[in-house]
Amino acid sequence: MGKNLTSREEDYSKWYNELVTKADLAENSGVRGCMVIKPYGYAIWEKMQAQLDKMFKETGHKNAYFPLFIPKSYFSKEASHVDGFAKECAVVTHYRLKNAEDGSGIVVDETAKLEEELIVRPTSETIIWDTYRRWIQSYRDLPLLINQWANVVRWEMRTRLFLRTSEFLWQEGHTAHETKTEAIEEAEKMMNVYAEFAETFMAIPVIKGTKTASERFAGALETYCIEALMQDGKALQAGTSHFLGQNFAKAFDVKFANKEGKQDYVWATSWGVSTRLMGALIMTHSDDNGLVLPPNLAPEQVVIVPIYRNEEQKSAIAVVANQIKMLLNKNNISVNFDNRDTYKPGWKFNEYELKGVPVRLAIGPNDLENKTVELSRRDTLTKETIPLDTVLEVIQTTLDLIQKNLYERALNYRNTHITNVDNYTDFKNLLETKGGFLSAHWDGTAETEEKIKEETKATIRCIPIENTLESGICIYSGKPSTQRVLFAKAY
Amino acid sequence: MGKNLTSREEDYSKWYNELVTKADLAENSGVRGCMVIKPYGYAIWEKMQAQLDKMFKETGHKNAYFPLFIPKSYFSKEASHVDGFAKECAVVTHYRLKNAEDGSGIVVDETAKLEEELIVRPTSETIIWDTYRRWIQSYRDLPLLINQWANVVRWEMRTRLFLRTSEFLWQEGHTAHETKTEAIEEAEKMMNVYAEFAETFMAIPVIKGTKTASERFAGALETYCIEALMQDGKALQAGTSHFLGQNFAKAFDVKFANKEGKQDYVWATSWGVSTRLMGALIMTHSDDNGLVLPPNLAPEQVVIVPIYRNEEQKSAIAVVANQIKMLLNKNNISVNFDNRDTYKPGWKFNEYELKGVPVRLAIGPNDLENKTVELSRRDTLTKETIPLDTVLEVIQTTLDLIQKNLYERALNYRNTHITNVDNYTDFKNLLETKGGFLSAHWDGTAETEEKIKEETKATIRCIPIENTLESGICIYSGKPSTQRVLFAKAY
Repeated sequence: MGKNLTSREEDYSKWYNELVTKADLAENSGVRGCMVIKPYGYAIWEKMQAQLDKMFKETGHKNAYFPLFIPKSYFSKEASHVDGFAKECAVVTHYRLKNAEDGSGIVVDETAKLEEELIVRPTSETIIWDTYRRWIQSYRDLPLLINQWANVVRWEMRTRLFLRTSEFLWQEGHTAHETKTEAIEEAEKMMNVYAEFAETFMAIPVIKGTKTASERFAGALETYCIEALMQDGKALQAGTSHFLGQNFAKAFDVKFANKEGKQDYVWATSWGVSTRLMGALIMTHSDDNGLVLPPNLAPEQVVIVPIYRNEEQKSAIAVVANQIKMLLNKNNISVNFDNRDTYKPGWKFNEYELKGVPVRLAIGPNDLENKTVELSRRDTLTKETIPLDTVLEVIQTTLDLIQKNLYERALNYRNTHITNVDNYTDFKNLLETKGGFLSAHWDGTAETEEKIKEETKATIRCIPIENTLESGICIYSGKPSTQRVLFAKAY
Repeated sequence: MGKNLTSREEDYSKWYNELVTKADLAENSGVRGCMVIKPYGYAIWEKMQAQLDKMFKETGHKNAYFPLFIPKSYFSKEASHVDGFAKECAVVTHYRLKNAEDGSGIVVDETAKLEEELIVRPTSETIIWDTYRRWIQSYRDLPLLINQWANVVRWEMRTRLFLRTSEFLWQEGHTAHETKTEAIEEAEKMMNVYAEFAETFMAIPVIKGTKTASERFAGALETYCIEALMQDGKALQAGTSHFLGQNFAKAFDVKFANKEGKQDYVWATSWGVSTRLMGALIMTHSDDNGLVLPPNLAPEQVVIVPIYRNEEQKSAIAVVANQIKMLLNKNNISVNFDNRDTYKPGWKFNEYELKGVPVRLAIGPNDLENKTVELSRRDTLTKETIPLDTVLEVIQTTLDLIQKNLYERALNYRNTHITNVDNYTDFKNLLETKGGFLSAHWDGTAETEEKIKEETKATIRCIPIENTLESGICIYSGKPSTQRVLFAKAY
């Protein structure tokens, strides 16, 4: 049963690209660097959105919507912010097309040039903080806890489906607070929300940490992150949460009257996760047979494939299949009963393996007689025959087991791929062989960080939150260091 | 209790603008023609989205996501389509900013000019049909029933919050079918879905009909629509569904092998509703005291306002209020218990009236003694005192009554504002006095339609689906006509 899927060992990158396309998740569009998210991929994203949205609302946030376009002058108000994004901005300069005078087709109407160029948002701090100036007058207006689901554009030269695209979908939280402490607490809280989401729903273990100064978000004083490890030993930043200090409040003059009646600038955070999470989900669990989805995010948790030789068998099986489907649906388990005549059972087995459906039930004439069904797990590819009257109970248990197993498997891989390294030679060797996170002493300077990156392509992924301090010497400079940090090559 | 809201009679347009801002629904942004949808407005839009999305999925549609940008060459492939949208397109011409050499700030980097300009989607037919060419090979791939939730941009010179903005949020369905009949059925089905949504959830009665050729969507063979009537006698197009024939299939070469193995172009529809519906919702039901929301779309269906003079009363009331809240929540009724000390009861009454919360409960010390609560209806502004132990039952009934009353009230207004008119003098008079829909004979020519529009600003809103044929003479040209059509001034 060939899926014509390149194996991970053969070419991990090719495996990923083929899988994304063949499992009907996404494809490249005719627009450079922009993807089409196909219905099956989008259904997974919708499940992720729904859960995240719930978690944001439970932590007191409300959704709103801000403009797609940002006037160039806004964009320039926070100096380090514009430096960070200027090189990858899509710029709108005109607002009309017309027929070319020489009849050669449609051209830009040069008389419809904007007085001020508009930037397609790469992130919305500037337009939002321009708005917050009108919304915030007093401490009574704080905290202001807003989230936005939106598309953003960052002009990328090298793109890969989900992982790095010029346009992507994301959510961006933007909050305003009375005090520095409260803002830092918010930034940390949202890092924790992201970590909980990644571990509980995506079944992806993550390391919580802070970024070094050079890896921080443009305009942030501190960037918190969650870092995951992919099966090829490369790290992936799965979400970031920024403490922005008073930088944007000062740039956009957002002051409030505090309880003592004094004017002060407000304190800010922003935080986001994107369709990049789809890439992490795919790469963490999938195998050479295709996608593997955690039950908590699978659009279809169970597929039922009937196996029959004639119409009579087909109808008899359909009765049982529909009963199972109803029973499972009633218990909030999503089921696809694929009763199509146009495809054979073998084709269907293959298809749903490729698409990562967690549990497959097959029902044939023998099962009818014996009152059984055959149950297959996508994560372990194991099969068992179970009595029909235990189907709900077994499936509930199995879905839980799969969710746990995927997490445990990923955690085990991740934990065996964090290696303590104490010299630069080992560091370089391990990076090229085993990969994964390398926990090493670093002297804390941007120069050393930059040199290591230049020479090995490894970056400091984070300074783990739960780090123990220990004195040591920097693997690169030999200077003293107070703690290990995590290096890795990364997506 | 002044809301400082201009009355509808005094200045309807000003009333609308003030209401949208004061009820915290939306506001203008610093970007020309683009609005900020504030959390309360967005919460209503989310409820609308959730319901529409459910209805689309129940009718077999799946969501997907296509690029924000459309290459200029795609846009030009369907001739009437580009004619319809070219004059209002935001055009991306560059992909980088840089620091000006003279130190004057950030400027567009002229070396980063795109080879082909990108249009910010005003609608996605072209990019989607370019994709469908890859997705559709055989009749097995049909019907293809896809919906997209997205932002779109149409450069508008005169904008109004929700009603006409340069950027707006919407959904756009794009379907592909084997036969003409099936495509027409789909276009009609979605018009019916929109009508059901408008009437059942928004409590807005609508007239289903088709557009005249000159009012059709650019590229459509038939445009179905639902038309609503606002309180100032102007019509509002609340949703459209287009039968596109094979126009886009031909422009993008989308063919399929039919059951006989022959190649044929597929048949298409597209359909959409947008944040414009928010404008319709606001204008249909609201009054001089503020917003009036139908319970089916209110983010908070019930607000509880405690009335107390001391801390002891406050705590005693809070116990009861929280019991009510839990009871209602358990029965899927959303409740806001506003226990803030920072605002007085009068201020709160005013605020929730302005925000259109359907039911308000007030609980004071006397109510505690008598085991009662005071219940106020936002639609009728009536109050009654009810026994505490009937609160769930009474609120359930009241919410139903409000939903029905709003619909009936709007239906009554709409029905008394459809006037048969048989000559052009009456037509012009009625348009300036009573307004509403004018049902008049029309000779069927674009010339007459255009003349009437020029002279009176009235357009043909639709040819109602449930029209009875009757012979008559055109009010403008005196030529023979076979049916009446509905004229109105419109948003």
